[in-house]
Order: sequence, then structure tokens, then C-alpha cells
Amino acid sequence: MEKRKINIVDTTLRDGSHAVSHSFTVDQVTAVAEGLDKVGVSLIELSHGDGITGSSVNYGFSKTNEIELLKAAGKVVKNAKLTVLLLPGIGTIEDLQEAKENGAQAVRVATHVTEADIAIQHIKYAKSIGMMTVGFLMMSHMASPEKIVEQAKIFVDCGADYINLADSAGYMLTDDVRARVSALQNAVDIPIGFHSHNNLGLSVANSIAAVEEGATYLDATCRGLGAGAGNTQNEVLCAVLDRLGYDTEVNLNGIMDVAEEIVEPIMQRPQVINTASLMLGYAGVYSSFLLHTYKAAEKFRLNPRDILVELGKRRMVGGQEDMIIDVAFELSQKNKK
Amino acid sequence: MEKRKINIVDTTLRDGSHAVSHSFTVDQVTAVAEGLDKVGVSLIELSHGDGITGSSVNYGFSKTNEIELLKAAGKVVKNAKLTVLLLPGIGTIEDLQEAKENGAQAVRVATHVTEADIAIQHIKYAKSIGMMTVGFLMMSHMASPEKIVEQAKIFVDCGADYINLADSAGYMLTDDVRARVSALQNAVDIPIGFHSHNNLGLSVANSIAAVEEGATYLDATCRGLGAGAGNTQNEVLCAVLDRLGYDTEVNLNGIMDVAEEIVEPIMQRPQVINTASLMLGYAGVYSSFLLHTYKAAEKFRLNPRDILVELGKRRMVGGQEDMIIDVAFELSQKNKK
Repeated sequence: MEKRKINIVDTTLRDGSHAVSHSFTVDQVTAVAEGLDKVGVSLIELSHGDGITGSSVNYGFSKTNEIELLKAAGKVVKNAKLTVLLLPGIGTIEDLQEAKENGAQAVRVATHVTEADIAIQHIKYAKSIGMMTVGFLMMSHMASPEKIVEQAKIFVDCGADYINLADSAGYMLTDDVRARVSALQNAVDIPIGFHSHNNLGLSVANSIAAVEEGATYLDATCRGLGAGAGNTQNEVLCAVLDRLGYDTEVNLNGIMDVAEEIVEPIMQRPQVINTASLMLGYAGVYSSFLLHTYKAAEKFRLNPRDILVELGKRRMVGGQEDMIIDVAFELSQKNKK
Repeated sequence: MEKRKINIVDTTLRDGSHAVSHSFTVDQVTAVAEGLDKVGVSLIELSHGDGITGSSVNYGFSKTNEIELLKAAGKVVKNAKLTVLLLPGIGTIEDLQEAKENGAQAVRVATHVTEADIAIQHIKYAKSIGMMTVGFLMMSHMASPEKIVEQAKIFVDCGADYINLADSAGYMLTDDVRARVSALQNAVDIPIGFHSHNNLGLSVANSIAAVEEGATYLDATCRGLGAGAGNTQNEVLCAVLDRLGYDTEVNLNGIMDVAEEIVEPIMQRPQVINTASLMLGYAGVYSSFLLHTYKAAEKFRLNPRDILVELGKRRMVGGQEDMIIDVAFELSQKNKK
């Protein structure tokens, strides 16, 4: 029987950017991109962690202009597709044009799981200029399988090449992944991808579950480099996929070497599941809530975990940080009773 | 519906001992054991990493005599059962008697997965002196479900209180766990436990799979402290079990605090999946093979990973380290052709 092909999308140089405070240099990017290309990953994603032109006071400044980084990667990437991430509202169509001119062959346009419509013009434009184009739904634990299908169809109608589902908070249990990927698999005719974070220690298992339900693209980073608990660890994922009989076309010894010899020396700290990232994954909230939550917890003498769990229950999303203080106040009043 | 009870067996002070070169002090053990007891784990395992009286030139000397450590833990453990590990051939019946006199209320008698019969006298003796007694099968990926049932029945016939299955090499895929635990569940009437290592990033998922197949005891360590890639991370496991609706009786905030405030400061290095531990998990071989394999690889100019994979294929077990050089020689001859 022919082995099923799984495309490995390495996002070390994009999601991993968060974990090194967006400090990637031209030399580092060249070494990582060249290594990843040689070992056979399908797509190499490179951008500020929050997508192209994310470099800002809000999201953290990049040490090196990402156009310079793209040019450097473009010189060494021969077989993989070089891709950027774009969040409508942060990156623009003009930015995308510039990224393409400097080496990007693909773009993943990412929105909150219920807001696919803000990506329509970006996806249509990317297709019109001949780029591989991916519709990317973030925080997908916050929507039902039915809602996700509805949103994914918006991407399909714009001509997206595949749909990528992201468990951005590392919140999903394996059955949550199965329900969402299988619903998509039954409803759309384009390929499905999955992006996982390891806050609950389930990123490899959830990625495998996604594949079992039909996904053919998997995001991962070398050594799991990424915000908080980090992403699915690429070299581990490839080893497990190999043991299960899938074909990633990635050379297993090669990806282990890229992780150990090229990425590990760049890392500022080891990628572990600490209490803060476990709490975020358990509660299913944005990492941007953490600092506000600690402050509110101190003010109202609460355990920050109780606030996070309450924020998760209320399904609060990024941008609603101001409400954390209200939630903390309510909890403290309740405790008094 | 009543939540199903899962017993958490914390082995930070036993399997975690490997990762700190058996250097636990009386103060450290007192703090960890007291913390674990307060938050509600069911069993607290404490011994040299290789079981009682493992302290030796072969297995590494303990900094502090384990009888002193047992006494210290015994003073602070009020609700959990304090347990020791015993490997027949290393620990003896006299050692077990001494451990009991100094605070051990339970013993887990561990053998290679095909050698349960060497534990018969130890289990019978432990039961005769009123200890909770567990039959523990190591390297259980190396035997079929049928073989494991046969071996587990030896433990049952001696009066063991539960059977613990260990994926000592972190090799098993989730379906391997399901096949073994479900076979046991169908064949024996005593509870089943599962012990996992994280070499393939699957320890939490595999522990959950074991529970879904009927296991009611799960081994874990705070922050995953353990040899190589480490064990199932206790606080993460408890969070996932809680999300899934199981009752561990462990206070989730409490176990997070024990991990962060008491165990993390003791750790000598963060618990990550590096290339060496990934290779061991991928190949399914003992960590004691690693050094010999590196030497043989250098001598014969081979990639050590190719040797490890071949050792795994030949199902070599601990004690056969001398044969590594023969395997390397054969591989190098094959490469010449």
C-alpha cells in the first residue's frame, strides 16, 4: 500500500519568533531555512510571529527587517515553498505584494475562528498574483465544528488552496480535534491542515488525530520553539509519523540535526510546560491575558488561575483585556459571600 | 454520573532520582513528599531510581542513604501511601523488610516484561507482611498483549494488588498502549496502572488512552522529572484528566505549585525531548545502550541512530551491551557492499 503523504509545514521562523523576542538574524534565518529545505519539509513559514509587518510596539519589534530575512531565505530555499503569515488588520495587501517580490511563494491568511470574512480580499489578491494561499483559523477551540465549516467555506469560495485549523491556546483535547477536522473533511474539498500548541502536552497526539481524520498538512517547529509551551516539536512529530507509516518526505536524521545543531543554539530558553502555559491551555485563553491577570489577582487577592478559568468560561478574546479587572472584581465579591 | 476515580502515583522521588544523579537530600524529600501528600496524590514512590539498594557503582550512588530519605518522608506523609520500588536481583527481601520498618507501606516489584516469575517470592513476602504490593512490568513494548497477560497472571496468582505496565523506553504508540491495557483489562480482575515516558511526546496521550481502556492508576512526576525525555508530567496529566471529567482527588492548583515551587528548583536541567532521547524512543532501546552506541558509531563511522534502530529491531535488552559492537560491525560490512 502506498504511504499517505503528510506535508510538514515548519513554522520555526514564524511562530518560533515569539520565543526569541523576534530577534532572528539573517545568518540564523539562512541556516535554518537552508537546513529545513535540505531535509525535505514542504513549506517554510517566515514572518514576525504576528505575521508580516507585525513588528511594532504592540507586538514587539523585529531585530531585523523581515524583508531582509525573506530575501536571505529565498536565496537558499530550493524545494520547499517559502511562506509568510498575514493577519488582516496587521499586514496589508501592499505588504503581501512586497513579500512576494522578495521571495514569498505562499501566504497563510489568519483570522480569529469566527472572522474569516476579513480575509476575503487578501486571499483573492494572493491568488490573483499566483501565490499558494491558505485560510488559517486561529483559536479554533472557540467555535463549534459547524461554525468552523461555515467559516472554512468562506475561504474555499475565495479560492484558498487549503484550510489550516489552529489550536492557538493549546486547549483542545484529542476528541475536540477529531470533531473539528472530521467535520471539515466531510464538508470541504480542499486539503486540511492543523496547528497545535503543547500547553496540555497533547500537541503530537492531537496532530496525529488530525491526520487520522484526514488532515494532510501539519504545522510544527524544531525543538517546539514557540510562545509559551511551544508548538508541536517537528523532529518528534516526524519520528511518530514515520513509525505510523506516513510519508512526510522529511529525512528523519536530517530534521533531528537541524533541531539540535541549528535551532537549539538559537533558543533563549528550553521549551517546557510551565505553570503559566499550563494554566492558559487549561483555561483556553490568550497568552496576552496573563500579565493583566496576574495584576488583577494581586489587587483582589485571588489565585490567578481562578481568574483565567473564568475568562475561559466567558470565552473572552484578545482585545478584551480591560474586562479582566471586572471579572476579578466579581470573583472577589463572590468569595466574600 | 459519578466521576471515575484515577489514582495518581507520583514517582518524582524515584524515577526522578535518575535525572538528579540520585542526589535527593532529606530536606528536598521532606518538602516534595509533604507537598504531594497535601495535594492528594494516592501513592508517593521513593527509592533510588533503580529501586531500593540500587545505590551502587553500576547504577550510581545515592547522595543520601535511602533509609534516611524514607524515614523523612514517612514523618510527613499522612494520607498517601508511601511506596518503594524493588527490582529482584538488585533489592532483596531483607531490604524490603528494612524499608517497611522505616516507613514504606507499599512496594512495586518490577521485572522485565517477560520475567515476572523472578518477582514471585518478593510479592508473596510483601503481602505476608501486610504491604500493598504491585507487580510492575518494565519495557512492556517488547512483549505482545498475550504475553503480557500471561506474565500479569503470575502477579495475580501471588496476590498482587494491581498490575503496572511500563513503557520504559517511551516507545509505544497510542494503539500499542490500547492493545496491551485492554487485553489486561479483559483478562485480570485486579486494577491496572500505566507508566509512561515522553520520548515520543506521547506520554500524556498514552496515559489517557490507558485510562480509556480501563487503567485506574497512572504514574507521573512533577515537571516530568525523569531519565532522558522524562516521565508523564504530573501537573499536566492532572489538568487533562480534570478536563476530561475524571476524579484524581488531586488539587490542581496545589500540584502545579508543588511542581513549580518545590520540584523545579531541585532540577539540574529542564526536561525536554533532545535528540538522544528521541532516538531511544524511536528505536525502543534502553538508555544504557546510548554510550556504547556512540562509541561503536565512531569506531565504524556509522550514524549512531542506525545502530540504535538495528538494536531495537533485534529486541536487545539490558545486559546485552557487549553485542552493540558486533551489530555495528555487521552494519559497516553491509554498507561496504
